[in-house]
Amino acid sequence: MTLTFHALPTPSLLLDRARMRANIRRMARHIQALGPTLRPHVKTHKSRDVLADVKALSGNQGITVSTLQEARYFFEGGERDILYAVGMTPGKVGDAAALIHQGCRLKVITDNPAMAGLLDEAAGRHRVSLPVLIELDVDGHRSGADPESDMLVRLAQRIHQGSALTLEGVMTHAGGSYDLRSTDAIHAHAEQERALTVKAAARLKDAGLPCPVVSVGSTPTAVMARDMTGVTEVRPGVYTFFDLFQVGLGVAALEDIAVSVLTTVIGHQPDKGWVIVDAGWMAMSRDRGTAGQAVDQGYGLVCHENGTPQDDVIMGSANQEHGILMARDGTPRLDITRFPVGSRWRILPNHACATAGQYSGYHVLENKTITTRWPRTRGW
Amino acid sequence: MTLTFHALPTPSLLLDRARMRANIRRMARHIQALGPTLRPHVKTHKSRDVLADVKALSGNQGITVSTLQEARYFFEGGERDILYAVGMTPGKVGDAAALIHQGCRLKVITDNPAMAGLLDEAAGRHRVSLPVLIELDVDGHRSGADPESDMLVRLAQRIHQGSALTLEGVMTHAGGSYDLRSTDAIHAHAEQERALTVKAAARLKDAGLPCPVVSVGSTPTAVMARDMTGVTEVRPGVYTFFDLFQVGLGVAALEDIAVSVLTTVIGHQPDKGWVIVDAGWMAMSRDRGTAGQAVDQGYGLVCHENGTPQDDVIMGSANQEHGILMARDGTPRLDITRFPVGSRWRILPNHACATAGQYSGYHVLENKTITTRWPRTRGW
Repeated sequence: MTLTFHALPTPSLLLDRARMRANIRRMARHIQALGPTLRPHVKTHKSRDVLADVKALSGNQGITVSTLQEARYFFEGGERDILYAVGMTPGKVGDAAALIHQGCRLKVITDNPAMAGLLDEAAGRHRVSLPVLIELDVDGHRSGADPESDMLVRLAQRIHQGSALTLEGVMTHAGGSYDLRSTDAIHAHAEQERALTVKAAARLKDAGLPCPVVSVGSTPTAVMARDMTGVTEVRPGVYTFFDLFQVGLGVAALEDIAVSVLTTVIGHQPDKGWVIVDAGWMAMSRDRGTAGQAVDQGYGLVCHENGTPQDDVIMGSANQEHGILMARDGTPRLDITRFPVGSRWRILPNHACATAGQYSGYHVLENKTITTRWPRTRGW
Repeated sequence: MTLTFHALPTPSLLLDRARMRANIRRMARHIQALGPTLRPHVKTHKSRDVLADVKALSGNQGITVSTLQEARYFFEGGERDILYAVGMTPGKVGDAAALIHQGCRLKVITDNPAMAGLLDEAAGRHRVSLPVLIELDVDGHRSGADPESDMLVRLAQRIHQGSALTLEGVMTHAGGSYDLRSTDAIHAHAEQERALTVKAAARLKDAGLPCPVVSVGSTPTAVMARDMTGVTEVRPGVYTFFDLFQVGLGVAALEDIAVSVLTTVIGHQPDKGWVIVDAGWMAMSRDRGTAGQAVDQGYGLVCHENGTPQDDVIMGSANQEHGILMARDGTPRLDITRFPVGSRWRILPNHACATAGQYSGYHVLENKTITTRWPRTRGW
């Protein structure tokens, strides 16, 4: 059902398609100039319609997913080349095998020989040959094998010798880039991600092992990368929408943020300078990622219904279905007559992946009108 | 589809039905002894099946909802008496009218005369008589009219004189109880909630206005209330499941928590004492409510697959689909051999409303087996 902008219920998730398409184009040109192919992560949008724009504008051949539910959804939508970029478990091999048996070129990842053994056994049981990439740890952020460890080669050998596994290459996600405080630091982090991943691939080749795929990730490092020598593919995700966190990192501008939450004013607490709206953390998510950045945006930055940011006003507090808009400094000086009851405002999110995850679809905004509704998937 | 416990995918949301039923029974007995009726808030579980247990065990006649989607879902499930406990907007009157025209005894709330005027106009346009309760602010927490203000009586008169509105009474949610640090303080807060709400009702009656409903809320104050004189109904919600935040407040025990997230170990970072699992913030929610309490539980407390808490281990960090289990003190001393790859663990959530909100249903655990799957609604 398509609704006019005026008739949209609140809270609603809006997607500014022109901004999204500009983001997609910019990343596609940037990565193309550097050489690798793009395997965009779809965990931010989880929408076949968004992916159709991504494919039309960047010509990528494969995607990255964060759940097997995303893999199923996009496979049913026609996508054949899918990397599941969360460490695989034996319990998921049956579902993966079902996709592979239907013709999906699904690839999985692991970072340790014990799991490789369990996967080999499970894949054998499900009579499937499971393509596996080795996850690398390039910045101490989370998962991954140390690119310089003996274990890396041992793991690669275990996969390569597995009767039901094939070694596809190496991949990493430089999630440490999210903690950096300057674009110079992100430039350096992107080079560290590239260099260590390429080094790991070289070590496998030196050991006589195949390593056709050399894959790096993260939107901040993808945006800030100046050299991709030796890398075969890049997997940014949040760049399609961007968000306040990415703006805080310096890898996007406020005007690049393509998603926002429409909300209605339901009341005021005049003495406190509070404006109460009908979007709370269920509508925004509980993500407070900007709390650790130079500019804390609360639960989101307030914009006029037409999209114009109100730089002095944030959603400073949120309950399940209530948000409290307030002056950025928390003082009661906000002129609440700017926000009459019944008036509608848009909130830019801290984290697009988390906010979009709270909705079953997007109201697509083009030329100031709602042109369509795009569903999205969720769950596991 | 019902799955055996062994075959459950991860992450999955588990609901321990025996614990839930004990929670429901305890609250029902407690409120019954104090006198008011129970109008439980369904925003925590959003499940007709959970509500069936609530109704069977507490005999309540009405429910409280946080969205009109909940109202529609429970109305279609047979519920007729529904309070929508978030400030009403004119844009939602059409949807409310549709429910009322179908026979739903839907009641809405507001806390200001300007909105009452807009609602009167919108209800007139939709040819519906809209029952309205006045929301009171009893603790400076969020929304609500000051129970001692002149505005309260003016607002009541505006509603009472509205051609398309009927004044049903007063209600409050003592959300300030969530910030308290002792059960003594919560006892006192419950009495403050009661006294101010009853006082507001008396002021309306003194002004010759009807006030049949005197309604209070919040699980902490409901659990800790010792007197409900003058109160007609109580609206707790999270008590059906409880969570780590409520345990931190002292209104529940760890053994009362009825929901948990099942997850699988995907890898380790041995030098750091990190155990990486396949449940991240998409599975747990981003809620970090216990961060402000005496015991910070991270993103959740780790339990054995059989439910036994591991008091020294929490999910200390989370990304979208990854959680990092670690020693409570963050040191690398955790013996990761306790958590082999492929092993499964359960995580107790900080906030049941937020965690359950990430799922489309519950795997119901009874006598250590999964007996059924209960769907839940979401969205607006």
